[in-house]
Amino acid sequence: MNFSSNRLQKSHISVAQNASGRNLNVPIYRINDGLPGPTVYIQSSIHGAEVQGNVVIYHLINALKKTRVNGEVILVPNCNPVGTNIKAGEYTLGRFDPVNGTNWNRGYFYDESMVFKFADNIAQDTDANDIKIAFRNMWRGAIQEKLKQPWGLGLAQQLNLRLQEMAVEADIVLDLHNGPVSTRHIYIPEYAKAAAKQFSIPHCIFIPNTFAGALDEATFCPWWTLQQTLSEKFDQQYDFAVQAFTLEMGSQEVIDFDEGKKDANSIMGYLACKGVVDDNEYRPADIQRIGVYLQDYKTLYTNFGGMVEYCVKPGQRVAKDEIMAHVLNIDTLDSEDGKKHLRAPCDLIPMLHFPSASVLSGTQLYKCFTNYFEL
Amino acid sequence: MNFSSNRLQKSHISVAQNASGRNLNVPIYRINDGLPGPTVYIQSSIHGAEVQGNVVIYHLINALKKTRVNGEVILVPNCNPVGTNIKAGEYTLGRFDPVNGTNWNRGYFYDESMVFKFADNIAQDTDANDIKIAFRNMWRGAIQEKLKQPWGLGLAQQLNLRLQEMAVEADIVLDLHNGPVSTRHIYIPEYAKAAAKQFSIPHCIFIPNTFAGALDEATFCPWWTLQQTLSEKFDQQYDFAVQAFTLEMGSQEVIDFDEGKKDANSIMGYLACKGVVDDNEYRPADIQRIGVYLQDYKTLYTNFGGMVEYCVKPGQRVAKDEIMAHVLNIDTLDSEDGKKHLRAPCDLIPMLHFPSASVLSGTQLYKCFTNYFEL
Amino acid sequence: MNFSSNRLQKSHISVAQNASGRNLNVPIYRINDGLPGPTVYIQSSIHGAEVQGNVVIYHLINALKKTRVNGEVILVPNCNPVGTNIKAGEYTLGRFDPVNGTNWNRGYFYDESMVFKFADNIAQDTDANDIKIAFRNMWRGAIQEKLKQPWGLGLAQQLNLRLQEMAVEADIVLDLHNGPVSTRHIYIPEYAKAAAKQFSIPHCIFIPNTFAGALDEATFCPWWTLQQTLSEKFDQQYDFAVQAFTLEMGSQEVIDFDEGKKDANSIMGYLACKGVVDDNEYRPADIQRIGVYLQDYKTLYTNFGGMVEYCVKPGQRVAKDEIMAHVLNIDTLDSEDGKKHLRAPCDLIPMLHFPSASVLSGTQLYKCFTNYFEL
Amino acid sequence: MNFSSNRLQKSHISVAQNASGRNLNVPIYRINDGLPGPTVYIQSSIHGAEVQGNVVIYHLINALKKTRVNGEVILVPNCNPVGTNIKAGEYTLGRFDPVNGTNWNRGYFYDESMVFKFADNIAQDTDANDIKIAFRNMWRGAIQEKLKQPWGLGLAQQLNLRLQEMAVEADIVLDLHNGPVSTRHIYIPEYAKAAAKQFSIPHCIFIPNTFAGALDEATFCPWWTLQQTLSEKFDQQYDFAVQAFTLEMGSQEVIDFDEGKKDANSIMGYLACKGVVDDNEYRPADIQRIGVYLQDYKTLYTNFGGMVEYCVKPGQRVAKDEIMAHVLNIDTLDSEDGKKHLRAPCDLIPMLHFPSASVLSGTQLYKCFTNYFEL
Repeated sequence: MNFSSNRLQKSHISVAQNASGRNLNVPIYRINDGLPGPTVYIQSSIHGAEVQGNVVIYHLINALKKTRVNGEVILVPNCNPVGTNIKAGEYTLGRFDPVNGTNWNRGYFYDESMVFKFADNIAQDTDANDIKIAFRNMWRGAIQEKLKQPWGLGLAQQLNLRLQEMAVEADIVLDLHNGPVSTRHIYIPEYAKAAAKQFSIPHCIFIPNTFAGALDEATFCPWWTLQQTLSEKFDQQYDFAVQAFTLEMGSQEVIDFDEGKKDANSIMGYLACKGVVDDNEYRPADIQRIGVYLQDYKTLYTNFGGMVEYCVKPGQRVAKDEIMAHVLNIDTLDSEDGKKHLRAPCDLIPMLHFPSASVLSGTQLYKCFTNYFEL
Repeated sequence: MNFSSNRLQKSHISVAQNASGRNLNVPIYRINDGLPGPTVYIQSSIHGAEVQGNVVIYHLINALKKTRVNGEVILVPNCNPVGTNIKAGEYTLGRFDPVNGTNWNRGYFYDESMVFKFADNIAQDTDANDIKIAFRNMWRGAIQEKLKQPWGLGLAQQLNLRLQEMAVEADIVLDLHNGPVSTRHIYIPEYAKAAAKQFSIPHCIFIPNTFAGALDEATFCPWWTLQQTLSEKFDQQYDFAVQAFTLEMGSQEVIDFDEGKKDANSIMGYLACKGVVDDNEYRPADIQRIGVYLQDYKTLYTNFGGMVEYCVKPGQRVAKDEIMAHVLNIDTLDSEDGKKHLRAPCDLIPMLHFPSASVLSGTQLYKCFTNYFEL
Repeated sequence: MNFSSNRLQKSHISVAQNASGRNLNVPIYRINDGLPGPTVYIQSSIHGAEVQGNVVIYHLINALKKTRVNGEVILVPNCNPVGTNIKAGEYTLGRFDPVNGTNWNRGYFYDESMVFKFADNIAQDTDANDIKIAFRNMWRGAIQEKLKQPWGLGLAQQLNLRLQEMAVEADIVLDLHNGPVSTRHIYIPEYAKAAAKQFSIPHCIFIPNTFAGALDEATFCPWWTLQQTLSEKFDQQYDFAVQAFTLEMGSQEVIDFDEGKKDANSIMGYLACKGVVDDNEYRPADIQRIGVYLQDYKTLYTNFGGMVEYCVKPGQRVAKDEIMAHVLNIDTLDSEDGKKHLRAPCDLIPMLHFPSASVLSGTQLYKCFTNYFEL
Repeated sequence: MNFSSNRLQKSHISVAQNASGRNLNVPIYRINDGLPGPTVYIQSSIHGAEVQGNVVIYHLINALKKTRVNGEVILVPNCNPVGTNIKAGEYTLGRFDPVNGTNWNRGYFYDESMVFKFADNIAQDTDANDIKIAFRNMWRGAIQEKLKQPWGLGLAQQLNLRLQEMAVEADIVLDLHNGPVSTRHIYIPEYAKAAAKQFSIPHCIFIPNTFAGALDEATFCPWWTLQQTLSEKFDQQYDFAVQAFTLEMGSQEVIDFDEGKKDANSIMGYLACKGVVDDNEYRPADIQRIGVYLQDYKTLYTNFGGMVEYCVKPGQRVAKDEIMAHVLNIDTLDSEDGKKHLRAPCDLIPMLHFPSASVLSGTQLYKCFTNYFEL
């Protein structure tokens, strides 16, 4: 192939300022061959310790450099430079703002009433494409308006809105995350269930159309709500073809170039299904896929504090009553009680477990698929 | 006076276990003269660095030892031993769980639908006192049920529910807090506005009947909702006489015995108004009180990072455009820009400001009364 | 065998108080059959995140319950309850006091001049055993004196001295640690080199008789210095048979019962060599052992910040110029520079590496054996 | 006056890289009129939460802009951008590296043996100025050599050496610090005792010529040792006129422009005494000055944990047995023990106290002058 030399563009945006008054910048990579097609937005490391997505973006750029792109792909690695740089001991305190505990992934904009008001004003035979353009303009404007509030906004929200300002342009949004000690899994909105077979990820969580603050929800909730509202109003199907997913690419605090290549291939397979890349090289893998509905994705908390051995691996099928953890009790090392057991409350597959042996009571030990099914 | 020797009882409850497997206990002080009257529940330090309330409880116990109590007063100092003991540098990281960022004051139980269902089942002429007993029994049961969930609960929620199990018995709930660098103020539910003049606290924030997770809301929302529902259903007034307040007793990270005595007197004045103590010694002070509605209690965030001099004091009246902060810019110390100004966006009274000079962009610099009024 | 029912005794000592004013206790297990023999002191988790030693002590107690003990074994698990309970994010900030940065393992007592003064006062033909008793009495007294200082002592030093008060009675001291991500290794004083073959640990670091603050040094430095001084003074060999070691039992933040059993067996093998247990069951394993002198145990720091893939495993032999780490550069993901290499400066064996992918410049990436040799 | 337009130069150096791979820069301001005179090096905020020195440098630059400079003044504000930007809760964890606990002010270079070796090679009648130049060249070279170590260096040490590379050129070094809650005081090497009256700082600590890792010591120890060695060798007085001081400018976490102006004036007074500025405007203030020798500058630790009211102010004279602190005991609020006292062990003046009410046992409550004297 013969590519234009400027099809890959790099720029930076400032998303925050630190206490020294310096801008904290995020790199933006855009690949565009001037061909029609969807806009794809991919970010990584909104949670600062979840760094593997940056490697995935490295491999995605390498792959996209060698293939034609229909539409545009925007890649934003290390999108939260604050979170990545807060060390507490040897680890990274990257899931929440160390000043106030705010989760870095909960400040995106969404306002359901704005969708309804917009739908109210749409006339019967308006062209779907015109609707899409008008809706996106309105939504972008609302995000920009929010950023200009005279009393200001909290850091996480400012960061989120600056990223959402880019993501709002996209038809496909992928947010790359990691779990603590974790196997690969993906969050898929129920209405886009078919996408489960377009990624090469063995575990799929189907989530309802409820906004809880994350980027995937902030992306698909407005469009899905608009579709539903217009469909009801005009008794006619609408599909604006906007999809958004949160991908969990293994464990936090780790980068692995070989694993990242596989994850990049999984994403390329999905992009091939969506017509973004027409290369035959990329296809979803032929693997077993297990699904679960969000209400069956359950957290197992401890009721005690102590030191924990995690006996089951993320991804492993566990039967009811199997031992999931041993707990050491330092005050009874001379008796049976020195080593207690914690058993599975039902058949389950753990997706992730807590990354430290030392736990207080009320610690989230495991997150598990229950009532899971094959896809 | 001649008091029974066992009118003041002390016990402990365990609210959590640490990573060594040891129980973390909270002391409970109860004062009861066997006389009829309301039950009062007072806790302090749910946010671990907000320690002044413990001194207030010390003075309350001393005051209550010398006066007759109608009903019962339950005092729970240092109610969050986890939060108080998490040091990060010289300070206490006490506002949220250091593991996951969860605010320690947002996990109390509330379920509006349970109120409606309960009201549905109430027959027309049921005695108001019987309703109160039945409702409290149901609510207590729901809290206890929640604590028994087979998959467990997060630490903050477990802690909150164990405290709420005691608070649910009370007619009056006072939750003692502090701001970062703060003047005294109080959160008052709009329906209990009269209480503003029963405390000796100069700044009053009136909050609507919306549950946002804190103990005061978890206490008054069910009762207020029940009153409203029954009043509408039977076209008749109900008043279950349950009140709950969050009191902000000055600045965190500080204890001051003299100031604590004044705060204790303020609370004794309120308790005298409610008939809990009949001593003539305690009355609300004759002071100026300023009020604000919650929607006018505004946060001023920075849009920049840097080093900040706070130029106005909590409690001070500030006119629009007055300088509220100077910001040092280390890269332009040789020019005018080395010292920038931040001005008041409108007339306001700051209640508190951030406790550190070093701020990132998006830091909550001040929380301010705007559109305030005299009471 | 027929054991006395009270040969295993459990007690607790308080080593600190938290901000709630509560004692923080450490459990002490003692096993004694009333038979002559050395006193052995074993502690674990002085660094709070290094928890595997607690499992080793669990298995040691189980093993010692089934075998006769010559002398006494004192086991002190979770000896630093402060360190184990400081969470910062999901991990444990256990290596240093979060208030002031003091390493929890650097506050033990040692005063070389006291040894010299003591030796000065010893007459020629004093019985070696009498010398040992007198010296131990003096040293114990000095520790106790230090703990009584009218101006008080820092927390780490108080904790260390309270543990050393017990360890000072012992002839054999084992301090159980972990590295970040680590293979098993042991610190052995040069004068006790023979012990290398008595443990079943593949990597041995020989350290000189220099006090740097740790418990092993605080234990053997006084005795070794006394031996040297008296030997010179009287031209006669002295051997007080005191030995102390720091054992690194794999990685921090993890407990593993099966691995802990192997480590316990390794220690039992050493105790069998020293005659503490006469069971034939325990012997040092027949494994390859690699040694290094402390000056050749080198730390490899980064000169850059970034995200790091650790390409070599602890324990693996690495040749000069082999790639040890890949570094991702988020600003150059579109070029070769996106993935940089860090190469081995010489032939080496890494013992441990940093546990997080996100590193600032100046981070200790690896600690490595260089100029190593077979034992 | 008529100043050259380029007498004030600004540049930046990079002292570290963060986990995003970005350089962390420090601004350098230099004022030079091309006139002979000493070189002065002033840095601030090596401890990240001690920010007031940055304001002092702001005022120093403003003052120096208006007056002629003999020699050169180099000003380095916010010299530790890592430390200033590590937030843990609302405060700044700026005293030590959050990864490993290393104090940011203990990694400067000093090697006594190098001084002796240098002195050995000096011939009798060598010109003092030539000695000074040769010695400085050697020392600078050693610092640069250290920075080039093939195995790298720790972050704090890298940072310190990069700053020391500039400071080594200076005849006068001022390191601007703050205490936790603190009154103004200064560390003065015993040999430069006369300087106590050249600053306008009421409390002076005289320190011996012992290197403990800080910048002031790293600056004056080599020169003082060289002077002593040459003086003994040649029986002749040498004075290389190098002085270095650590100035404690009040409390951390606070900036105050008005106070900073006074501190800048104090420094200008000293610089006037040293002939750097010849303006008559600046003179040491006529104030009472109190001195103490380092061995009498004592730390008062607690032996208990609890919540502390600090009853005496930094700078206040306290008599033996006066109450210095009240301690609240949450488990005994119903008895006298609820409020315990901590008394002064002797006559003293506290310089600073701990900034949080919540303390564990072993916390440094106060640092105090004892056996103090008027200057």
